[in-house]
Amino acid sequence: MKQLKFGIIGIGNMGSGHALSIMAGKVPELNLVAVADRRETRRQWAQDNLPNVKIFNEGTDLINSGLCDALIIATPHYQHPVLAQEAFAKKINVISEKPAGVYTKQVREMNEAAEKSGVTFGVMFNQRTNSVYRKMRELVQNGELGEIMRVNWIITDWFRTQSYYDSGDWRGTWAGEGGGVLLNQCPHQLDLLQWICGMPNEIQAFALTGHWHDIEVEDDVTAYLKYPNGATGVFITSTGDYPGTNRFEVSLEKGKLICENDKLTLYKLDDSIRTICKTSKEGFARPEVYVEEVETDGENPQHVGILRNFARHILIGEPLIARGEEGINGLTVSNMIHLSSWLKRPVSLPIDEDLFLSELNKRRAGSKAKKETGTDTTANLSGTY
Amino acid sequence: MKQLKFGIIGIGNMGSGHALSIMAGKVPELNLVAVADRRETRRQWAQDNLPNVKIFNEGTDLINSGLCDALIIATPHYQHPVLAQEAFAKKINVISEKPAGVYTKQVREMNEAAEKSGVTFGVMFNQRTNSVYRKMRELVQNGELGEIMRVNWIITDWFRTQSYYDSGDWRGTWAGEGGGVLLNQCPHQLDLLQWICGMPNEIQAFALTGHWHDIEVEDDVTAYLKYPNGATGVFITSTGDYPGTNRFEVSLEKGKLICENDKLTLYKLDDSIRTICKTSKEGFARPEVYVEEVETDGENPQHVGILRNFARHILIGEPLIARGEEGINGLTVSNMIHLSSWLKRPVSLPIDEDLFLSELNKRRAGSKAKKETGTDTTANLSGTY
Repeated sequence: MKQLKFGIIGIGNMGSGHALSIMAGKVPELNLVAVADRRETRRQWAQDNLPNVKIFNEGTDLINSGLCDALIIATPHYQHPVLAQEAFAKKINVISEKPAGVYTKQVREMNEAAEKSGVTFGVMFNQRTNSVYRKMRELVQNGELGEIMRVNWIITDWFRTQSYYDSGDWRGTWAGEGGGVLLNQCPHQLDLLQWICGMPNEIQAFALTGHWHDIEVEDDVTAYLKYPNGATGVFITSTGDYPGTNRFEVSLEKGKLICENDKLTLYKLDDSIRTICKTSKEGFARPEVYVEEVETDGENPQHVGILRNFARHILIGEPLIARGEEGINGLTVSNMIHLSSWLKRPVSLPIDEDLFLSELNKRRAGSKAKKETGTDTTANLSGTY
Repeated sequence: MKQLKFGIIGIGNMGSGHALSIMAGKVPELNLVAVADRRETRRQWAQDNLPNVKIFNEGTDLINSGLCDALIIATPHYQHPVLAQEAFAKKINVISEKPAGVYTKQVREMNEAAEKSGVTFGVMFNQRTNSVYRKMRELVQNGELGEIMRVNWIITDWFRTQSYYDSGDWRGTWAGEGGGVLLNQCPHQLDLLQWICGMPNEIQAFALTGHWHDIEVEDDVTAYLKYPNGATGVFITSTGDYPGTNRFEVSLEKGKLICENDKLTLYKLDDSIRTICKTSKEGFARPEVYVEEVETDGENPQHVGILRNFARHILIGEPLIARGEEGINGLTVSNMIHLSSWLKRPVSLPIDEDLFLSELNKRRAGSKAKKETGTDTTANLSGTY
């Protein structure tokens, strides 16, 4: 199979991991030809570890070098849409690390640019490759269990210390990250939530800032979700709890799914509980429940799986697991949670993107992070995210 | 041991159960001498099943008969404080079924009357006798695990069909019950919540009325709780879900407790995670967690346990498990959830009891239930609650 000439912009935690996977031959469809990072220590790391790979200071220079057919953007959040649009203009295929961006207005522009360019646009939603979540999606979406009635995701196993936030002056700041646990830790879960259950259309949320840490952004979040069909739910997350919980429960008309400890349990009914509710003559009806641990294919290729799929989509038309354009969905949920918390009222779809941005910008303006980390240049802080 | 001469007002589901327990000798401290019920079928049942027990139509007549040292009130909710105060005036010891009443203003008056009378006042919080909850309370309250950080109780295993609500014209109505799942199904959990974790001091809640059933009152509730120390939590309940969940999770500084399927699991740390958060040099610190299923004494005497304790308190001064005066706490949480849902804003302690009552009365005035079920007489509907 032909290989794609591949570039990586930002070789911090995530980018360097991708580089090593490719160098180790785990993504045979990609040939790593170039990397970029503004930080000297990371470029030195590249020199030492990535033989025959061209090293740039600036992502823009990598994009303009003509060396790459495709690239991944693994810089701080605000830069994802900026660099993606530069690459689309050069007809380079792009995969973006999560989140797609910090505010949907910018991501919407990126999506439009992607469509106009005609190149492939992907997003690193590696959790979509987890067999448990794939199976959960299949069971929810194939209709056999009927409509969703309730969604509870308690995802509090993101414990981070103060020293984590102190490790980079962009961390935990509105200017540097544009948010806290929602933007940094939860993009996967917010994507899976909508990928499996569809988009909530109204949210009232309580995002507490600096609750467990000395940071500007949220580290304790409870969101109440309402769905178009009347289902309700909660999404609860935190970087202060330990040991945390990761328990994702979806109640449907004909059964309940619980995903906890990498195990998916199905509680299945013969008939819809909505029908039984309306027609049973018994006040305390207790229809039989069939409990089973759901078998999956067990495959969980994560980042390598997404990179291979992205490359094979370009090379041989394999269906894309995570279209870049879908990155806006989880981010929309994140933006709704923030906006509702700021305004102290429910927020419905479609959200007022200008209002969100003006509220975000108020917080960026008051941020203690270096201002340049929030501007339109690649941050000089890559390497620590 | 001396026996108390005992009366039961309201011999529906609960009252008849208590009567049979006493007749079977399960509560040796009590001698059942009188019952009252306005419904002919229930009095006939008493005639057939309760030999040598005096039968009254009216609770008031039982109270005034001079036959009883102590009695239990097992009528519809609104009547609990009314009858209790009549009994206090006659120096009769009283145990009330849950909830203590429908609105705290009325319950506060009942509590004041109880104190003034000097008799014993208890409340049927039989779940306080469950060894798992007793152990959970001990572990939270003895301080070894530090302060509470998060409380999540998903208690959705209250499935009821439409025919349940249709079985009495007071059911599911503001005039008849004064609320739905919060007043009828959840008083035990709302009491345990505050008994184990203390009172939340602010609540914003979403009590959806008639969401799963054709009823006036709430059958789907999500409440966001804030505690004085900064802890947060959710309380989620419904009579529409099936199979439901009963999962009570409390995160503390030095461990986490999860109560599910009658099993209590403790995840214990050596040090406070708050200290580790502030002092660890590791950004991703993962201190060791010791997991154990907590052993309890296994005793769970429920209603009989509460009745025996109530009697033994009067007879020999045994400490009371569930003081009547504490019934106001869970009801306050319930009233806060309703008031917040009605006003669509957070409600803090102390709640505005007059505002609550005026909002409740608006709903009672528009209720389709027979007006007399909400008045100051014993409802003619006992026997079906």
